[in-house]
Amino acid sequence: MSRFPDDSKALHTDLYQINMVETYWRDGIHNRKAVFELFFRSMPFDNGYAIFAGLEKAVQYLQEFRFSKSDLEYLKEEAGYSEDFLDYLAALQFTGTLKSMREGEVVFNNEPLMRVEASLAEAQLIETALLNIINYQTLIATKAARIRHAAGDGVLLEFGTRRAQEFDAAIWGTRAAYIGGFQSTSNVRAGKLFGIPVAGTHAHAMVQAYRDEYTAFKKYAETHRDCVFLVDTYDTLRSGVPNAIKVAKEFGDKINFKAIRLDSGDLAYLSKSARDMLDEAGFTETKIVASSDLDEYTIINLKSQGARIDTWGVGTKLITAYDQPALGAVYKIVAIEDENGEMADTIKISANPAKMTTPGLKRVYRIINKSNQHSEGDYIALEHEQPNEAERIKMFHPIHTYISKFVTNFEAVELQVEIIKEGNLVYQLPEIGEIQQLAKDNLELLWDEYKRSLNPEEYPVDLSQECWDNKMKMIESVKQNIKE
Amino acid sequence: MSRFPDDSKALHTDLYQINMVETYWRDGIHNRKAVFELFFRSMPFDNGYAIFAGLEKAVQYLQEFRFSKSDLEYLKEEAGYSEDFLDYLAALQFTGTLKSMREGEVVFNNEPLMRVEASLAEAQLIETALLNIINYQTLIATKAARIRHAAGDGVLLEFGTRRAQEFDAAIWGTRAAYIGGFQSTSNVRAGKLFGIPVAGTHAHAMVQAYRDEYTAFKKYAETHRDCVFLVDTYDTLRSGVPNAIKVAKEFGDKINFKAIRLDSGDLAYLSKSARDMLDEAGFTETKIVASSDLDEYTIINLKSQGARIDTWGVGTKLITAYDQPALGAVYKIVAIEDENGEMADTIKISANPAKMTTPGLKRVYRIINKSNQHSEGDYIALEHEQPNEAERIKMFHPIHTYISKFVTNFEAVELQVEIIKEGNLVYQLPEIGEIQQLAKDNLELLWDEYKRSLNPEEYPVDLSQECWDNKMKMIESVKQNIKE
Repeated sequence: MSRFPDDSKALHTDLYQINMVETYWRDGIHNRKAVFELFFRSMPFDNGYAIFAGLEKAVQYLQEFRFSKSDLEYLKEEAGYSEDFLDYLAALQFTGTLKSMREGEVVFNNEPLMRVEASLAEAQLIETALLNIINYQTLIATKAARIRHAAGDGVLLEFGTRRAQEFDAAIWGTRAAYIGGFQSTSNVRAGKLFGIPVAGTHAHAMVQAYRDEYTAFKKYAETHRDCVFLVDTYDTLRSGVPNAIKVAKEFGDKINFKAIRLDSGDLAYLSKSARDMLDEAGFTETKIVASSDLDEYTIINLKSQGARIDTWGVGTKLITAYDQPALGAVYKIVAIEDENGEMADTIKISANPAKMTTPGLKRVYRIINKSNQHSEGDYIALEHEQPNEAERIKMFHPIHTYISKFVTNFEAVELQVEIIKEGNLVYQLPEIGEIQQLAKDNLELLWDEYKRSLNPEEYPVDLSQECWDNKMKMIESVKQNIKE
Repeated sequence: MSRFPDDSKALHTDLYQINMVETYWRDGIHNRKAVFELFFRSMPFDNGYAIFAGLEKAVQYLQEFRFSKSDLEYLKEEAGYSEDFLDYLAALQFTGTLKSMREGEVVFNNEPLMRVEASLAEAQLIETALLNIINYQTLIATKAARIRHAAGDGVLLEFGTRRAQEFDAAIWGTRAAYIGGFQSTSNVRAGKLFGIPVAGTHAHAMVQAYRDEYTAFKKYAETHRDCVFLVDTYDTLRSGVPNAIKVAKEFGDKINFKAIRLDSGDLAYLSKSARDMLDEAGFTETKIVASSDLDEYTIINLKSQGARIDTWGVGTKLITAYDQPALGAVYKIVAIEDENGEMADTIKISANPAKMTTPGLKRVYRIINKSNQHSEGDYIALEHEQPNEAERIKMFHPIHTYISKFVTNFEAVELQVEIIKEGNLVYQLPEIGEIQQLAKDNLELLWDEYKRSLNPEEYPVDLSQECWDNKMKMIESVKQNIKE
């Protein structure tokens, strides 16, 4: 990387984006206003909700978007683009408008999470990076929320850096984990960059370096007030726990014997036995930390076995979203300025109804039932519609349209917020703690049926009548064109 | 991130590493020489081999290793370390020695891929980042090699950036894919940074922007000589392929009608029908590119159905290693200088035999049978052993030790190369093309039985008698200690 000190993220895109922009530019339509929406089609992990994350990095990316000198040289020398087109690219910045869900928002499939209004060229070039960011961070925030749900009041530590898919995933993944409800991370750099609390004590290597567990614990206690002893280097119950207790007794008030950590073996059995040993020795306040390929399933399982675990260290399964390592969010054009300067809706047709796009500029509302302060569903309406002025609204399932309902006595809260307006940041990016709190508060609006980890109910994300009619009209018109 | 322009990767570590180093430093053992090995315990994807990758980035990380001003401030203000210890950290660089497999080397479980000899403190601090790098890149290179094996002579394009786990995974993942046998990537930045060929033409959005497939193809053809038309925006066989053919006929020699691309639907059926339509229209040289959640399994399956696909675009399933998104490599201490300045071996015991470490300084040899130029297995011997001087060697399975064999007429080729010597790079990092070639050449040494994608034979990775005896002696001695 060091060969290119001016390495920019503008090149962090698929080649076809640049090729399309070349066509638009030569054809003179590159500055037509276009509207793209970012959304995903199915819920990750079959979960009942997702937690939106990635906005902060997306904003950073858009604000810094600019082809650097070495980028342009590469495009010329290696990719063979011509000078005139490169002069155009050289001047490009993101001057469009971004509306987005806030980070920490509870979101669902088939609703627009972000809306980009920009010149066709700008909107096209940023697709790949936006998806790269939002797909991963939203996936991990959602996985973390599932684990948080499983762990109840237990403390959750993110431990996954060594198994993360490269550096950025480690950093942004632990930030997403924090948004989803984790308390701390082992990654010191993430602690510094994002203000996430950091946690960790020692590894097996320290015990091996002293070649004697008792000495290792003693040396650690001599140099740190807060002690969490890792007890499974040789034999958890015969060596680890007894040595930890021995050292804690010797040091007494000089240390804070916070916890022991179990990292292998039968965690249910070991935690119960270790708990008894600690209690018997008078260390009733000393906690038990467990780690070892944990996820929401193993946590629920261990709890159901009566495991005495207070703190869960979660690594691989969280940071890679092991059971579903990709969220399939897409970015689709829904409207474009025509030759007369009017906005015209666009659609993508598919044999699979879930893959048809919903045309037009839209807004997403959360329909809050005023009588119980829970949400009845999300409601997607065309830009000009005013759901709050209606006495009742009819909500349609976007695919199974024969499922519909009327809602009254509601408040329709618009979910997308204006973030960047004509290239300028108009939104105050919140601190990480506020984002975590927002996710927590938003989850409170949801009925429990949507939050269980297995077979949750499907939350309604519905289209307005007008939005639906508009979509049907366009499908018909495309079909007519194909016939001709 | 921009809050810290001096953001360094030295903090890209787990907090416990710094806590342990604090103990070592206060106890005065931080400069004792320690030896750590990096290895994984089980084969990813149940594959018969893995392709080592990540060395280039690891070298870059080690050479740049240094706590920055803002790192040290963070450790002081937020993490509460004291001045004297921070002064020590401030001066740290990597001054140790790294031996490693070369990138592109065919490697196996339970053999050391890297060996770090450094001060205990330095060796400890770099663990997390090294694992973060090697785990991901080796995983993806291996996945790519599996897909290459399935695709035979087919062309393979890496398309995964939008689904990658953040930016670094997109970049380093596609580099690893190239090492494993892919021909090109869609990620332009990776093309620039690593010299990988880039590929791509247009997306659905372009067809939608023109709201008419024929016009879109025509506009693309007017602006690009090489044309690959994406034919599934509305209806592949009724609209996409006929429009592509129509435009190609109109433009004749003015364009190079390289291919059509199928991105959804029944790829076997569509590719056969599209092939017929292309051939009938005289475009027998025009290729068919397919994409849509492909991996080695779908490729084998499509080929078995007689699909007429020439080029495979592989995204999500490769870049995330979807069916096993983490490689569990670990980094274990195998020897440490004792109080008398002598190196002493160390071991980690476990109830699970696969989790016991193998103590001592070791070398890894590939045992090449001189009569057929294939490899008989890998052989792990203690540092001082000279397998090439033996007439025959006895090879032991490292876990199932009753499995053993004698090998004669062999050449023992040492696999780890000295990369960094006492902090200085002593190795010429190869170009990416050489690395890809090395992987290809190395795979030729392997019998086909180790290369099939389903149920491959287990390749022998064995310990020398001396290495085995040393391990047994240490296990006994630890057990004795626990009893006492």
